[in-house]
Amino acid sequence: MSEPDKSEDIPDESAGKGIPNGGNAAKSKEDFDLAAIYVSDAQYNRNIYFDTSPQAVRLYLRYNHWIPKVLLFFFIVVNLSLAIFEEPAVFPVPSLYTMLVELLCLLVFTLRLVHYAKVIPRDKFWKDPKNICIIVVLVLTLVDMIIYEALIAADCYAVRWSRVLRPLLLVNVTEGRQLRRAFRSIRNALPQIFYVFLLFMFSLLIFSLMALKLLGKRGLKTIGGAPYFTNYLEIVFDLYVLVTTANSPDVMMPAYNASFYFAIFFILYILINTYIFMSVFLAVVYNNYKKYLKEEVRQLVRAKRHKMVRAFAVLQEQRAEGGEPVVKQANWNQIVKLVQPDISNAHRELLWSVSDDNNQGFIGKVAFVQLADLLNIEVITLKSRPHPLQRACPALYLSAPSRLLCRLIQHRAFVITYDLIILVNAVFIGLDEANPLIANSEWVFLALYLLEILLKLYVFEPRAFFSRHSFWNWFDTIIVISALIATIVNSAVTSSGNYTSRQILDIVFILRVLRLIRVVDSIKRFRAIINTLIRIGPAILTFGQLIIVVYYIFAMVGMELFKGKVKFYEEDSSDPAKAYCGNPLLKGTDFAQLNYCKNNFNNVVSSYILLLELTVVNQWHVLSSGFAAVTHISARLFFILFHIMVVIVIINIFVAFVLEAFFVEYSVDKSDLQTSLERKIEELELAVAQEKLEDNLVNAMETMDNDQGTGQSANNKPGLMFKIASKRYRTVDALLQRMFEADLDPEDFAENDDEANGNFANPAFSSV
Amino acid sequence: MSEPDKSEDIPDESAGKGIPNGGNAAKSKEDFDLAAIYVSDAQYNRNIYFDTSPQAVRLYLRYNHWIPKVLLFFFIVVNLSLAIFEEPAVFPVPSLYTMLVELLCLLVFTLRLVHYAKVIPRDKFWKDPKNICIIVVLVLTLVDMIIYEALIAADCYAVRWSRVLRPLLLVNVTEGRQLRRAFRSIRNALPQIFYVFLLFMFSLLIFSLMALKLLGKRGLKTIGGAPYFTNYLEIVFDLYVLVTTANSPDVMMPAYNASFYFAIFFILYILINTYIFMSVFLAVVYNNYKKYLKEEVRQLVRAKRHKMVRAFAVLQEQRAEGGEPVVKQANWNQIVKLVQPDISNAHRELLWSVSDDNNQGFIGKVAFVQLADLLNIEVITLKSRPHPLQRACPALYLSAPSRLLCRLIQHRAFVITYDLIILVNAVFIGLDEANPLIANSEWVFLALYLLEILLKLYVFEPRAFFSRHSFWNWFDTIIVISALIATIVNSAVTSSGNYTSRQILDIVFILRVLRLIRVVDSIKRFRAIINTLIRIGPAILTFGQLIIVVYYIFAMVGMELFKGKVKFYEEDSSDPAKAYCGNPLLKGTDFAQLNYCKNNFNNVVSSYILLLELTVVNQWHVLSSGFAAVTHISARLFFILFHIMVVIVIINIFVAFVLEAFFVEYSVDKSDLQTSLERKIEELELAVAQEKLEDNLVNAMETMDNDQGTGQSANNKPGLMFKIASKRYRTVDALLQRMFEADLDPEDFAENDDEANGNFANPAFSSV
Repeated sequence: MSEPDKSEDIPDESAGKGIPNGGNAAKSKEDFDLAAIYVSDAQYNRNIYFDTSPQAVRLYLRYNHWIPKVLLFFFIVVNLSLAIFEEPAVFPVPSLYTMLVELLCLLVFTLRLVHYAKVIPRDKFWKDPKNICIIVVLVLTLVDMIIYEALIAADCYAVRWSRVLRPLLLVNVTEGRQLRRAFRSIRNALPQIFYVFLLFMFSLLIFSLMALKLLGKRGLKTIGGAPYFTNYLEIVFDLYVLVTTANSPDVMMPAYNASFYFAIFFILYILINTYIFMSVFLAVVYNNYKKYLKEEVRQLVRAKRHKMVRAFAVLQEQRAEGGEPVVKQANWNQIVKLVQPDISNAHRELLWSVSDDNNQGFIGKVAFVQLADLLNIEVITLKSRPHPLQRACPALYLSAPSRLLCRLIQHRAFVITYDLIILVNAVFIGLDEANPLIANSEWVFLALYLLEILLKLYVFEPRAFFSRHSFWNWFDTIIVISALIATIVNSAVTSSGNYTSRQILDIVFILRVLRLIRVVDSIKRFRAIINTLIRIGPAILTFGQLIIVVYYIFAMVGMELFKGKVKFYEEDSSDPAKAYCGNPLLKGTDFAQLNYCKNNFNNVVSSYILLLELTVVNQWHVLSSGFAAVTHISARLFFILFHIMVVIVIINIFVAFVLEAFFVEYSVDKSDLQTSLERKIEELELAVAQEKLEDNLVNAMETMDNDQGTGQSANNKPGLMFKIASKRYRTVDALLQRMFEADLDPEDFAENDDEANGNFANPAFSSV
Repeated sequence: MSEPDKSEDIPDESAGKGIPNGGNAAKSKEDFDLAAIYVSDAQYNRNIYFDTSPQAVRLYLRYNHWIPKVLLFFFIVVNLSLAIFEEPAVFPVPSLYTMLVELLCLLVFTLRLVHYAKVIPRDKFWKDPKNICIIVVLVLTLVDMIIYEALIAADCYAVRWSRVLRPLLLVNVTEGRQLRRAFRSIRNALPQIFYVFLLFMFSLLIFSLMALKLLGKRGLKTIGGAPYFTNYLEIVFDLYVLVTTANSPDVMMPAYNASFYFAIFFILYILINTYIFMSVFLAVVYNNYKKYLKEEVRQLVRAKRHKMVRAFAVLQEQRAEGGEPVVKQANWNQIVKLVQPDISNAHRELLWSVSDDNNQGFIGKVAFVQLADLLNIEVITLKSRPHPLQRACPALYLSAPSRLLCRLIQHRAFVITYDLIILVNAVFIGLDEANPLIANSEWVFLALYLLEILLKLYVFEPRAFFSRHSFWNWFDTIIVISALIATIVNSAVTSSGNYTSRQILDIVFILRVLRLIRVVDSIKRFRAIINTLIRIGPAILTFGQLIIVVYYIFAMVGMELFKGKVKFYEEDSSDPAKAYCGNPLLKGTDFAQLNYCKNNFNNVVSSYILLLELTVVNQWHVLSSGFAAVTHISARLFFILFHIMVVIVIINIFVAFVLEAFFVEYSVDKSDLQTSLERKIEELELAVAQEKLEDNLVNAMETMDNDQGTGQSANNKPGLMFKIASKRYRTVDALLQRMFEADLDPEDFAENDDEANGNFANPAFSSV
């Protein structure tokens, strides 16, 4: 599953194979399709070794279409969600239905795989561990379903063990590249972590032995009256828990109460194992992460260049003078249209003018190869349109009072006034809403917020106000309108039957509080931090997927091991078993005393919440001891394994990623390509002043649109303007490349241009 | 206290002032003293602007002598330790005695300061905030002592508030450079952290408001039966604690028990505040740390170069041809002898041959400036001596059976055999020592370990075996001899009176277990990790000092606020007040129920242990709520402040430091100077084979000495050999410079040579 994507490589020997028209002949539709695929693969860093025959190319185009992809992910989600309906279920459904749905999912996955098999050559297909893995999972799932049904029919005990394999599909589909990369970084860090972990375990065992010898014979008692530190394995467990700090200082107290000097033992232990070793784990994980990611990104960049060179080879034409082959503007235009059908003509012309700097009407290989990167630079196209009211009634809209109003609304004081209103609102929300004055004030605030939006719409052109990048405008409007609707519905319900719906009221409250977040946008420093967070957000989502996959596996295993062992009784239940979670074995344990009964593996949702609590670490020893009490002491191994996997490995990789992404945000400047694009925009006098842009979230569209939307100041400017969204990345790959671009050897690029048919290493580097 | 060391700069205008003999005249003793001071200051990165008059130079030499330095630190430690004897005391002593000792300390500090004042020009002295700070602390302490005695004499309530100021002396003495730097990195990171912290607080307040609205009116109860989430300030505290994970999942359970959906609120909260914000804190701290440290190190390197240029200016002589000024070998030798009196002649000659690469008998400025760095490269001098037994009785020692024995002991199997013995020993230690067979086995193991040491001493030359770098040999011998003595004493005590001394037995046990650590040395991977840890060890100690200073301040304040509020009763006490720590206000609190009575501020040792528990974070809310219960709810602020200061700021800087140091260890190669020194060693055929060196801790002296110590294989080699301890750093500064050397602009060095009298920026960069 975490094997490097070996067969995704584009092999060298086929460089000229699929290019029927190498000369100056007119390019056929097949040629354009093929070139478009190469460019699009380069743009999105897809490394699929597809067959270059026209038929396979058409199939491959269909394979990359968004509909089958969305369908695939839909069925993967359906397949994973089956856990909600299968025994132990949140919503029980007869196993026949879930089986049928699962069969449908399997069918979809098989179809997708067959499609993939037709796109790439047969030998490549069978050499790819991803495909083998999917086939194995599909077959095993089928086998498991048959066995399960047979066992159920024969009234035997049956386990749907293949459910553990389901997340492997998410990892191994061709679109799961980010996830596979995350798994690879984990696998690469493992050997290094392993040795540090062994040393850590050695230290743990030595300290435990010392604790046994020093404290075991003292006759000390824990707070519960149990003998203290007399069993070696218990000590090892207690001290392992101490490393996670979850039982500090409780585990130390009996010894500390006996003598000051024993505290020294625990202090030394904490210093060495909690602070030093845990920092070393982070250092090792971080170091490996950086090292391997850099190598992977280098391979990615090489593969991208290589694909662009292929596309160039398809489109190239020999110039009359017999010089270097070139690509003409007409062909280039057609390719860009094919790759990105929604690109505006103006944007395309801008890109061309960057590539063809000297206005020759054709570009060489070097300039063509840039295309993939150029397409990845997000350029915001601004159209300056007059306000609809201005068109409808120019006399009124351009009158002196109207102009004054516009100036007032655009003034800084307007923003400050509304910030103050929000603060007052916050105080009112905090006060008791039983007071009728305060309850009615809500209407006033809602009216004020609505007024704000209407006033802004009066000033700013509506399409600009609700442009794709105006995050806060959308946020405000949605929150205020929803709050208005919810408040009206709530009033209606309350007045009609003198009955308050808790759900509606909750929504009203949430919306009210969410409105306050807007203050953040007014403070420049806050905005900068939040922009950074939003920028690294998409990449963090990869870790979200990773966590979901790992949780799923642990949840499935956990449910088989612990389902039904701990029962939750509703608050109002009077069953005496409630005090010990329905399992007499829990009597007197911390688990029952702390009322952790709902932290169980009785269904997949509970399991996920429990696993999250284990990730947060605190009290995990109470939880694990609880489940050990109802099953067997060795059940603790499950929880220790989870701690090692998730907290020591994955969370550390997450921290490493966030650190690295932050440093890039703080230190990396624009790329050369962005600079040249920006220079070109400025040359063409299409630029938007930078200072107008800095004051808004992510792309600062609101402030910028202001001036143009009013139709007052925009008259002396061209009707269409461009702005580079310099720090946004369309894809996670782009962020990763950005992270290591500074470290990448520039020769990597130069070299590639020369050795279009040369040797390219496997995109996934070979050894650990 | 954390002001940049402004006046430590060496100003430009005095460059030629103190150099009386600029020409070819014989150098006077004063010249050598002055030059030696410059070189030594450069070597140890001392940035003291001393007067260059011969008298001041003599005083400065005395100021830098180790005796007054050690005395100063001794009295600083005594001054800090007074807290043990002052009220609230561990060992109560009448305040008269502690006052007298404190007066003595103040006198010593004053004398040291007067000495310093005589060394540097008066205007520089008064411009230095460090000196002002020390004077203010001294005066305030005197005033406080007088007020305190007066109040005590008048039977009033008196507080020794100046005790908080004591650690400032440790920070502000000239030798506290590392500590000042650590404080500066904290201060520099503060503005950035502050804004992230504000945003975090905003998020906390918004989430708390939402929690109040969503959960406050549900009538939920905590496990103790108290109303759940009804008080806004309580919610803010609870959610702040949740960020530290200390009350997870308890704080969530009442809401989660009421409905699944409330868990979503807490999951979102944990994701945003615990994972994202805490990672951002680390990222911001780390980023600032790297940025400012790099700048500081650049200044340090510049100042070092500048001092070496000064020393060169003092020693330089004009060559007859009227070329560049040079330093002759004789003068160079005298300076090196003055700077490092314990350097061996061979080592000195080696350094000269590196500097004077062409054997000219003199060196220019560029080569001279290297001297400070050369002296900082730790070179191990190996003398190959025959084994004393060989000299005493060569016939026997060189006989065939003796040679066979030597070969056996040096064989890998010998190490493995003893590793196995250690493992068997570990099992025996784990077993119950009441069994006489096992109790007696201890003698067998002791005999085996003694035999091992004797055998090794038979093979290896004793002085080489116990060389300064043979960590594990020293470790083994000390542990085994101590264990032998302790076991004999223990047996004697036991057999004499049928009475077992617990203390002696404890020592015996500890020594037994410590012996097992030796196994680590046999496994190569473990040794590599431990070597890294040992190398970054000295730098970690700076953080130890930092923690001690910060703890001291919090302990002093904590003792004034909370002393005597919580009482600890011995285990065998039958006082009913024991159940609530002697304070009825604690009845029914978690603090009393968890038996945390000994976690109090009743003396400085308890305070330190309590502060460490707070640093580990877990259960800190129980501790803070306990102290809030016995005083006032606002006491929680003390604990929150401690958490922010120590956990969010200092621990993050510590992690940043460890990460950075690890990356350097993993990635940085030898410096150019080390390479050239090593090349020279090889040229002179004085090198020791590298592979023989890799197999030992830190410097691998044991294996290397083997071959030479036996006197069998060393005959064909020179009697004296050198080896660079390539990855050890004599000073913390050296490690820091190593960390950023790769990033430092090489022009910094080149420039310096040209502009000996040019402008040097203040070593501490100016603004935040």
